[in-house]
Amino acid sequence: MLHLGIDVGGTNIAAGVVTEDHQIIGRGKIKTNRDQTAEATVLDMAKAARLAAADAGVDWAQIADVGVAVPGSVDPEQGIVSYANNLPFRNTPVAALLQAELGKPCYLENDANAAAYGELLAGAGKGAKNFVMITLGTGVGGGVIIDGRIYSGFNHAGAELGHMIIVKDGEPCSCGVRGCLEAYASASALIRQTKAAMDADPASAMWALSEGGARVSGRTAFDAMRAGDAAGKRVVDAYIDYIACGLISLVNIFQPEFIAIGGGICNEGETLMAPLRQAVAAGDYNKDLPKHTRICRADLGNDAGIIGGAGLYRLV
Amino acid sequence: MLHLGIDVGGTNIAAGVVTEDHQIIGRGKIKTNRDQTAEATVLDMAKAARLAAADAGVDWAQIADVGVAVPGSVDPEQGIVSYANNLPFRNTPVAALLQAELGKPCYLENDANAAAYGELLAGAGKGAKNFVMITLGTGVGGGVIIDGRIYSGFNHAGAELGHMIIVKDGEPCSCGVRGCLEAYASASALIRQTKAAMDADPASAMWALSEGGARVSGRTAFDAMRAGDAAGKRVVDAYIDYIACGLISLVNIFQPEFIAIGGGICNEGETLMAPLRQAVAAGDYNKDLPKHTRICRADLGNDAGIIGGAGLYRLV
Repeated sequence: MLHLGIDVGGTNIAAGVVTEDHQIIGRGKIKTNRDQTAEATVLDMAKAARLAAADAGVDWAQIADVGVAVPGSVDPEQGIVSYANNLPFRNTPVAALLQAELGKPCYLENDANAAAYGELLAGAGKGAKNFVMITLGTGVGGGVIIDGRIYSGFNHAGAELGHMIIVKDGEPCSCGVRGCLEAYASASALIRQTKAAMDADPASAMWALSEGGARVSGRTAFDAMRAGDAAGKRVVDAYIDYIACGLISLVNIFQPEFIAIGGGICNEGETLMAPLRQAVAAGDYNKDLPKHTRICRADLGNDAGIIGGAGLYRLV
Repeated sequence: MLHLGIDVGGTNIAAGVVTEDHQIIGRGKIKTNRDQTAEATVLDMAKAARLAAADAGVDWAQIADVGVAVPGSVDPEQGIVSYANNLPFRNTPVAALLQAELGKPCYLENDANAAAYGELLAGAGKGAKNFVMITLGTGVGGGVIIDGRIYSGFNHAGAELGHMIIVKDGEPCSCGVRGCLEAYASASALIRQTKAAMDADPASAMWALSEGGARVSGRTAFDAMRAGDAAGKRVVDAYIDYIACGLISLVNIFQPEFIAIGGGICNEGETLMAPLRQAVAAGDYNKDLPKHTRICRADLGNDAGIIGGAGLYRLV
């Protein structure tokens, strides 16, 4: 049988038909419309799903079930989205609504958790029993796999790894607390850190690399460093140090087989990963034991949510 | 049947005969001798066990099995203590040695994990599925229960909750890293913070309460605060804030049903717990959800390791 995964993002609703061995064989996409009702959004999800099935050229009867990754507070047992910042869901029975529309069993999960599950099934965490994923994007998302299952606590709201405090009384975080990992290690934080370093150093190559400050991105400091810019290197070193801080805590708490890092910043590859591994190894409380957590890149990129979503039936 | 729990501490080896409903009905105790061989220490453990059986007045045949809580790196699957700072164990097959001596199946666990399991079976975490325990002592110990079982990662070295970093580049920790929770929230850290505040304020009531600085303890600042001393209150407020920092991260990571706080400092009761609950509630990333982690005191005190140890057979 085939499984349908839907990843509901702030920009697109992306659906995929996924085989038992986690290959996406057809895709459908609909622009996310934030200004419509919950019901209309569910209809868009159904439409993306049917587009994917058509793209795969499969009969609807071949689809066994549908799994949806949603950004927000999800109760997978009830099939309810309690709250989603960018979507019109407020205690909305999304699973039941979608099931009524598509005539298939529908499962829900938080998007970061679903992405971690996707990486477990088919990506960086393949075959692992315990596995932590952290995604460095606009925010810092987290997913925790324990014993091959998504762990999210008694209220399904855990694994908010971006909201560990790494600098008590530090930078304000979007959550209202100060000093969260997200306030230092997200791509947005890196851009903030880059801009601050540029303001402090009018001679930095980062100015030219960002069109005079008009296009500062998560790449600016890395590119400047590669061009030999000292200020750029300082930004990158400090940024990696912040990420390491969070990872050291995660290693000492979970001692997972892997920690996978996701998000666009991973495109820096070993420039990011090598110093990160070194910093984390130095902070591992059990550095003398023979077995250590491996730090690696997430494999599936934007497909993690679709593949994880399509795999949710395994957890029922 | 009855079960024997042994808690190997830096000062005493404490054993107890424990009923199926977690009551200790007999006790035995031997002073810990750090300057002897691993074999001699195992013999002392066996002696403490036999003393407990004699104290309970039960026949040795009524003892089904023995569970041991050891401070250090333990591999419960292999029954090996890889390393223990204060004991002569280095990759020592403690379970096999003790089993040969006592003629009963023997199980091992790290002491903080065993204590958390004890609290799950018979204390603060009773009936919980997911549960985190943190002990504020000389260091800061941690235990994590997930799905009714001890979680300690793929190398059995996880749940080192005292070694989350809460202040990047902060106070040096005994582990070599800077800014760990342990460096701020342990009883030792509180004493350090108290002494620093006293040095800064020669008029503080903490001087009189500590015999002119000769007897500064974890109680000094709390007692001074109760006597109306402003410096004492500042120490207590800051200390509670540090603990809250760690607990906020644990809530956002685990969203467990309970976090239980253990260690002598808990004797402060609501003086500690009430502001701690308030601070943690304010930092919960999911403060708008209806269900929240409860922060409570550990119930079993020094018996947690014995009761958890005696219960280890349940995990086999």
